[in-house]
Amino acid sequence: MTLTLGHIASRFGCELKGDPDASVSHVATLQGASADSIAFLANAAYRGQLETTGAAAVILTAADAAACPTAALITPNPYAIYARVAAQLHPARPLRPGIHPAATVADEATVPDSCEVGPGAVIESGAMLGERVCIGPNSMVGRDSRVGDDTRLMGNVSVCHSVRIGARCLLHSGCVIGADGFGIAQDPPGWTKVPQVGGVEMGDDVEIGANTTIDRGAIDDTVICEGVKIDNQVQIAHNVRIGAHTVMAALTGVSGSATIGAGCMIGGASIIAGHIGICDNVTLAAGTGVANSIKEPGVYGGWPANVDEIGRWRKNVVRYGQLDEMARRLRKLEKQLAKSAGEE
Amino acid sequence: MTLTLGHIASRFGCELKGDPDASVSHVATLQGASADSIAFLANAAYRGQLETTGAAAVILTAADAAACPTAALITPNPYAIYARVAAQLHPARPLRPGIHPAATVADEATVPDSCEVGPGAVIESGAMLGERVCIGPNSMVGRDSRVGDDTRLMGNVSVCHSVRIGARCLLHSGCVIGADGFGIAQDPPGWTKVPQVGGVEMGDDVEIGANTTIDRGAIDDTVICEGVKIDNQVQIAHNVRIGAHTVMAALTGVSGSATIGAGCMIGGASIIAGHIGICDNVTLAAGTGVANSIKEPGVYGGWPANVDEIGRWRKNVVRYGQLDEMARRLRKLEKQLAKSAGEE
Amino acid sequence: MTLTLGHIASRFGCELKGDPDASVSHVATLQGASADSIAFLANAAYRGQLETTGAAAVILTAADAAACPTAALITPNPYAIYARVAAQLHPARPLRPGIHPAATVADEATVPDSCEVGPGAVIESGAMLGERVCIGPNSMVGRDSRVGDDTRLMGNVSVCHSVRIGARCLLHSGCVIGADGFGIAQDPPGWTKVPQVGGVEMGDDVEIGANTTIDRGAIDDTVICEGVKIDNQVQIAHNVRIGAHTVMAALTGVSGSATIGAGCMIGGASIIAGHIGICDNVTLAAGTGVANSIKEPGVYGGWPANVDEIGRWRKNVVRYGQLDEMARRLRKLEKQLAKSAGEE
Repeated sequence: MTLTLGHIASRFGCELKGDPDASVSHVATLQGASADSIAFLANAAYRGQLETTGAAAVILTAADAAACPTAALITPNPYAIYARVAAQLHPARPLRPGIHPAATVADEATVPDSCEVGPGAVIESGAMLGERVCIGPNSMVGRDSRVGDDTRLMGNVSVCHSVRIGARCLLHSGCVIGADGFGIAQDPPGWTKVPQVGGVEMGDDVEIGANTTIDRGAIDDTVICEGVKIDNQVQIAHNVRIGAHTVMAALTGVSGSATIGAGCMIGGASIIAGHIGICDNVTLAAGTGVANSIKEPGVYGGWPANVDEIGRWRKNVVRYGQLDEMARRLRKLEKQLAKSAGEE
Repeated sequence: MTLTLGHIASRFGCELKGDPDASVSHVATLQGASADSIAFLANAAYRGQLETTGAAAVILTAADAAACPTAALITPNPYAIYARVAAQLHPARPLRPGIHPAATVADEATVPDSCEVGPGAVIESGAMLGERVCIGPNSMVGRDSRVGDDTRLMGNVSVCHSVRIGARCLLHSGCVIGADGFGIAQDPPGWTKVPQVGGVEMGDDVEIGANTTIDRGAIDDTVICEGVKIDNQVQIAHNVRIGAHTVMAALTGVSGSATIGAGCMIGGASIIAGHIGICDNVTLAAGTGVANSIKEPGVYGGWPANVDEIGRWRKNVVRYGQLDEMARRLRKLEKQLAKSAGEE
Repeated sequence: MTLTLGHIASRFGCELKGDPDASVSHVATLQGASADSIAFLANAAYRGQLETTGAAAVILTAADAAACPTAALITPNPYAIYARVAAQLHPARPLRPGIHPAATVADEATVPDSCEVGPGAVIESGAMLGERVCIGPNSMVGRDSRVGDDTRLMGNVSVCHSVRIGARCLLHSGCVIGADGFGIAQDPPGWTKVPQVGGVEMGDDVEIGANTTIDRGAIDDTVICEGVKIDNQVQIAHNVRIGAHTVMAALTGVSGSATIGAGCMIGGASIIAGHIGICDNVTLAAGTGVANSIKEPGVYGGWPANVDEIGRWRKNVVRYGQLDEMARRLRKLEKQLAKSAGEE
């Protein structure tokens, strides 16, 4: 695949400084770029690499354009434009419609001719795939589940029974959608399982990372709204609700019945307690432990019951590193005061 | 499935206030209930929803019965009774005995006629399944492993070789039982693998969450006793021993050779160090990091080397949020004292 | 398998105190050993078990040999020698070359006759396996990926497309190598996916734990160098680089573009921020949260922005447990000073 700079500029609404007939065939980093590649600059930390880049063209903001030694594609959002250019230069493997002979599709399942079902895939009875769905090798779609148009399951994905997946979703290998929530009732000497009769409702344009788990609801559904992007090894417990376009980095855990608003950005390895609410447009620093509801948009950090506005949290973090010194100073003051009291 | 309230009361030993001939067909939350559903009240936080519930009946304690606007099923343990009613109203899919033509069962494996082996499942040589075992799509039972009566493996489960699983267990998708423990010996410039020759011994009535991993022992077995319930994405290292009826929430990690007693409740995202012991009947708050043995039953929390009785821990947590303020007050005292010393 | 002590001593370069014709058939712990077994002592915590061991022989250091009540195999590195003896006594199941009829191998894939491809395994087009590769049940090797000689994939492993795995690697069940990195560009109201066009480059002699995920690079590759050993449920984000012979315990997360040197030992449940560097020969205590680069070899611990030399960190940890007491002492001083100021 080769694109001219003129095509890129007009298609993606960039201002071009450079030869519109020059062409690029692949993306590259500023540092690693060769003469047939296109790079981008969206993070100031990499500005130093601009001067010596070997790229044919760089996607960047107007502020950086003057320093660009090669063709410049100027836009207010270089990273998003880069994403679209990269998708054109490096398109996903085209769908190969058909059911592989080594797949198993139940008689009572619905699989349109436009779908690709890979070897070892299993589509159980009552499952319904939309148009152009791709089911990777050894993945399963459980009974009575629905998968929307153009959604792709990579290999070894488990979609359990009675789950609804939207259109244009992407589910990475090893993720499990709709396993039972962790519902157990104390019943001495042990525990009785609480049947998990809800499902999972996942909107359109959702991406789920490798080995992430999203449990089905206990009674009502677990809900993942449209446009949510979840990284690898995230755990979403039963009856959680995640609002539209919220993103969540790897290793995060959300406990049962927690509600997360729309437009949130959850840093990696965060832990969110059960039955609490986080309002729209909250950003959590990596490793945040949220024990109580957050009712105001903003940036928060902290661990575990000290979640705070991030500036205040960071001050306390700095003090933590001085704790031993503080304790010694406190002891010294106490001695000093005891001595002066004795002197009086 | 429909049950009369009279049947529920007599079968599960509840006191019924209401019409014994009224019937219910499914479970619901207090808030979402319709006239053919049964709800429960076990958590005081939801008591406010009782008054307006549309449920045909509510399972609750005697203390809440007076406030119930509809039929009441009175019991000291509403959640456990709810669990049993729900299991009757929403039974698990019945077993369909037989080996799917797309399954692979080795000649030397034992699979009774009462078992269901799904498409893509693999039963290796020497493996022995008990009666009415269900092996989900694309799951495997490794060579010489045993699976007890009525145990169910959902899809994409890996039971490795020489593992013993008890009866009536439930293993969710993506869990891995019996992968090698992390045994490596420093052997400059690198590391030599230490063969993991132990197995995993799992008792009856154990539930294992999605994508949880339980490693095989280095020499002796890793042991999970009867009635243990483990949530998703938990990591159990080699030679761990977990006592009967202990429950463990998601994202928890237990390091090698740690011993956890019976009747413990381990909060999510907890980390337990290797070679330590936790006695019976210990409860850990979520996110607890246990670095040393716990020898007295009780409730503990803290992180990472400060695990403490939960009340004391919480006091320190509160002070953490005041650290910057404390440091400023300390500095002020120092100045004040220096000044008064100068004045003397 | 049976080995004489004389064979073990000469083969592995140990000094033998005892009968060279005595033989052993399996490994055991000091405590659990029977008369036909061999044990080892490498950890002082177990020295007390030496006296009463029933083992035929014990592998230990010269310092411990005098206290050994049975035959002693003396070496400076008992654990590594034990590992080699255990590998001889308990060899891995021999390879059974051939492609199982229930496997799916694309016409355009390369699978030498010396390979074993298990039931349900999928080898996509363009994939190339080296000699004597073993692909476990229901595992996949994606299109255009390469797997080096003598590498083993256990069951349910996902090697995605265009990934390169070295020789003699061992990939445990449920691990996912080469899923897309978490690349999204803010593009209101939502997010645009950033194509992940890099791959994963994994060196020789790497071991990857169960359910661990290693993402492919955004543009360049994610790189795991030779001899790296990674435990279960570890998350390695896109464009991470891990140097040779570094080991990483379970539940650890490494964020995008972080660089970890050679010879590092990363404790379990550690979190390493993106775009930072950790130099060679760094040891991290379990649960360390590294937010900034580490430029000097040494032992570090701490959480999350307080990573410090481990001794200093531990002092602060101790003070954390005294925080409430410190706050009370501070308050007392303030009152005392206010009172004496009032008296003046």
